Amino acid sequence: MIATTPPYYAVIFSSRRNDADQDYAATAEAMVRLATLQAGFLGLESVRDADGSGITVSYWESEAAIANWRRNAEHTQARQLGRAQWYAALSVRVARVDRAYGTDLDPPA
Amino acid sequence: MIATTPPYYAVIFSSRRNDADQDYAATAEAMVRLATLQAGFLGLESVRDADGSGITVSYWESEAAIANWRRNAEHTQARQLGRAQWYAALSVRVARVDRAYGTDLDPPA
Repeated sequence: MIATTPPYYAVIFSSRRNDADQDYAATAEAMVRLATLQAGFLGLESVRDADGSGITVSYWESEAAIANWRRNAEHTQARQLGRAQWYAALSVRVARVDRAYGTDLDPPA
Repeated sequence: MIATTPPYYAVIFSSRRNDADQDYAATAEAMVRLATLQAGFLGLESVRDADGSGITVSYWESEAAIANWRRNAEHTQARQLGRAQWYAALSVRVARVDRAYGTDLDPPA
């Protein structure tokens, strides 16, 4: 849950899946579980449509928390598998959230 | 296409649709078309899953461009309809993109 107010940080991960399903779902679920255990993790929103396009946004207290998560060994291995096997295309953007409003500011953690 | 390099700006719009379909698809498509015509628009990525959860991220050259789009009359009306009719929940976050990497840094404009 995002109990904090901006500024905080977001990692915007956009991807298109290919047809290789080997271990994808299990690894994706494991990475979500692992992310929630990291220091500085605030929340995560993730959507993938039937065509295989997906956007996952994770929210973090600090850039240091993002850097630590990036260095996590299991996460690093999963990223390598993703680039090699599961994604036809992907982009990652790191952003500082300056303003937040709406009815649903607590993404499921 | 995002031909520019960071810093630029992102509007992260997360929502859950309800079952009211009246004019939703036409309005959503019209808003995407209209956004692409705005000064400072860089690109847009949008995904909605079968359960009605969606994330749309639009990218902009400046905070001023975002403010102008927010003031656009048709967009303002569409947002009001969205809050009243189409969305069970929504959040909007405005963020400054500081770093971008990956294989797919040009979202379809």
